[in-house]
Amino acid sequence: MKKIILDLDTGIDDTLAMSYVLASEDAELIGITGTYGNVLLETGVANDLNLLSMFGREDIPVFKGVSHPSNATDFAVPDSSGIFHGKNGTGNVDIPTRATRKAEETSAVDFIIDCARKYGKDELVYVPTGPSTNIDAAFAKAPDIIDNITIVMMGGSLTQPGNCNPFMEANVSMDPEASNRLFATSADITMIGLDVTMQVLLTKKETQQLRDTGTKAGTFLADMTDYYIDISEQEDPAFQGGCNLHDPLAAAVAIDPTLVTTYPINLMVETEGPSIGRTIGDPARLLSQPKNTKVALSVDAERFVGRLMERLLKLARESE
Amino acid sequence: MKKIILDLDTGIDDTLAMSYVLASEDAELIGITGTYGNVLLETGVANDLNLLSMFGREDIPVFKGVSHPSNATDFAVPDSSGIFHGKNGTGNVDIPTRATRKAEETSAVDFIIDCARKYGKDELVYVPTGPSTNIDAAFAKAPDIIDNITIVMMGGSLTQPGNCNPFMEANVSMDPEASNRLFATSADITMIGLDVTMQVLLTKKETQQLRDTGTKAGTFLADMTDYYIDISEQEDPAFQGGCNLHDPLAAAVAIDPTLVTTYPINLMVETEGPSIGRTIGDPARLLSQPKNTKVALSVDAERFVGRLMERLLKLARESE
Repeated sequence: MKKIILDLDTGIDDTLAMSYVLASEDAELIGITGTYGNVLLETGVANDLNLLSMFGREDIPVFKGVSHPSNATDFAVPDSSGIFHGKNGTGNVDIPTRATRKAEETSAVDFIIDCARKYGKDELVYVPTGPSTNIDAAFAKAPDIIDNITIVMMGGSLTQPGNCNPFMEANVSMDPEASNRLFATSADITMIGLDVTMQVLLTKKETQQLRDTGTKAGTFLADMTDYYIDISEQEDPAFQGGCNLHDPLAAAVAIDPTLVTTYPINLMVETEGPSIGRTIGDPARLLSQPKNTKVALSVDAERFVGRLMERLLKLARESE
Repeated sequence: MKKIILDLDTGIDDTLAMSYVLASEDAELIGITGTYGNVLLETGVANDLNLLSMFGREDIPVFKGVSHPSNATDFAVPDSSGIFHGKNGTGNVDIPTRATRKAEETSAVDFIIDCARKYGKDELVYVPTGPSTNIDAAFAKAPDIIDNITIVMMGGSLTQPGNCNPFMEANVSMDPEASNRLFATSADITMIGLDVTMQVLLTKKETQQLRDTGTKAGTFLADMTDYYIDISEQEDPAFQGGCNLHDPLAAAVAIDPTLVTTYPINLMVETEGPSIGRTIGDPARLLSQPKNTKVALSVDAERFVGRLMERLLKLARESE
């Protein structure tokens, strides 16, 4: 059974990703590492702790990661994140349970390093749904783990325009240098970018099913996701009738790679100029083998959304 | 047997594409339509006529296309084209034979329309190796042919940076509006872009084999291609040891689509702003079916280059 580390900037779709893994009997969530992005690090970690409390899973440790981009000393949440995820990260809907515990003393970076050394890449999948800052810091501190961890990241966009601007996807935009260094390693990376995440949607028909469970968790997930659907309709010119399932798709692929078909390529991230943050093939490594990144280009949307709803409903029903 | 129309701005690699099709027993070159780009329309058409004379194939008609982009009234050859293809289009190497005939009276646009109506998309493959201006004009004049022609185009770049600037590939750069209109139709398009053409190379080892044939045509092809290899080494920061085989790959795929693997997508071309000319997925048609463009992402380089050399050598040996 795969061991999963979720690296979250929690975040609405981060919450759905966490829910997906918690409800997956074919995966073990061994820890959550916190990052910044949709919210500040502290907010995201507090959300993680409260959500795990709500789901009755206070056995899962939460670790604090780096609180700011690799080339900066601090971080402010971009306006767009506040809009799409609400000020509190969960669509301005309160998580109905407050955790009594705190994050672990061990840093996220050390937890990632320890797990990679302990489990190796066949057993461990690390799923960053925010910037690449934590994994970049872990690789810098412990280069020996680079080939000992499987990475399934939500981020980037290869064949579609970005969602911050025509070039830049939100997660990679946070720390383009870190993402660029990550892609330049030999690490085994599956990129779940806008290419596929914009092809998978959740609508109010599905959130109503969650609400119908009548549980606190089901109501919370429904209300939070409805906020995301409404704000997407309001703000996203490419709105397709539902909210995009960015982070949960990465979580799902981490457990079952057959949900997507991928294209092997050596990628780079532009780190300056008008298209800073663009994920694009690296011409200097065009003919280099092996290609370390698998970019998901097609997704079995029906199977994924069906599976997501099955798991979210199970989790909601089993919670209070 | 497939009937091929080559739409050429001849051009060094256009010459190789023409040579490829002429030497292919599994395809019939029914006509060449001239366009602008690497050279002026008049220069390219003169090159086509002289090359067909050299190859002893004056039975193949040549038609003049539109001489300038769809939104302009004239066209000047960009400096970079003059550098990469030489002032005369064939690497400043003279074609050793002069044609006695001229281009047909019928326009390229009318020839394309007539052939589409006569043969239909199962039999006819149109292969533009320059801008999309002629096919765009044909579709505007005769929308009924849009679904009656198979298009295998050299142009664009989806997963790699452009070759004019980080966004823009040279052919699409000539007339982004025309390419954008083309991609927005329901036409069956296979895009052979930099994604694959930069993966296929010809080196001086191969051109020496052409020279060793001792024929006028073999020597010409060797000298012309050596110019292309030398200038690529000098000018191209991503030089990989040989010249890229842009146009011949499109010609080869027109005859045998199994040389590449493709990704179905609805594309657009940016027509303004800093990334004008960029070929990228159209978010507004992300979920629309069917997807009309197949972008080649992988190529069987060894099989293609082997086949190219086999055909070029046959053509060189059978010429004077």
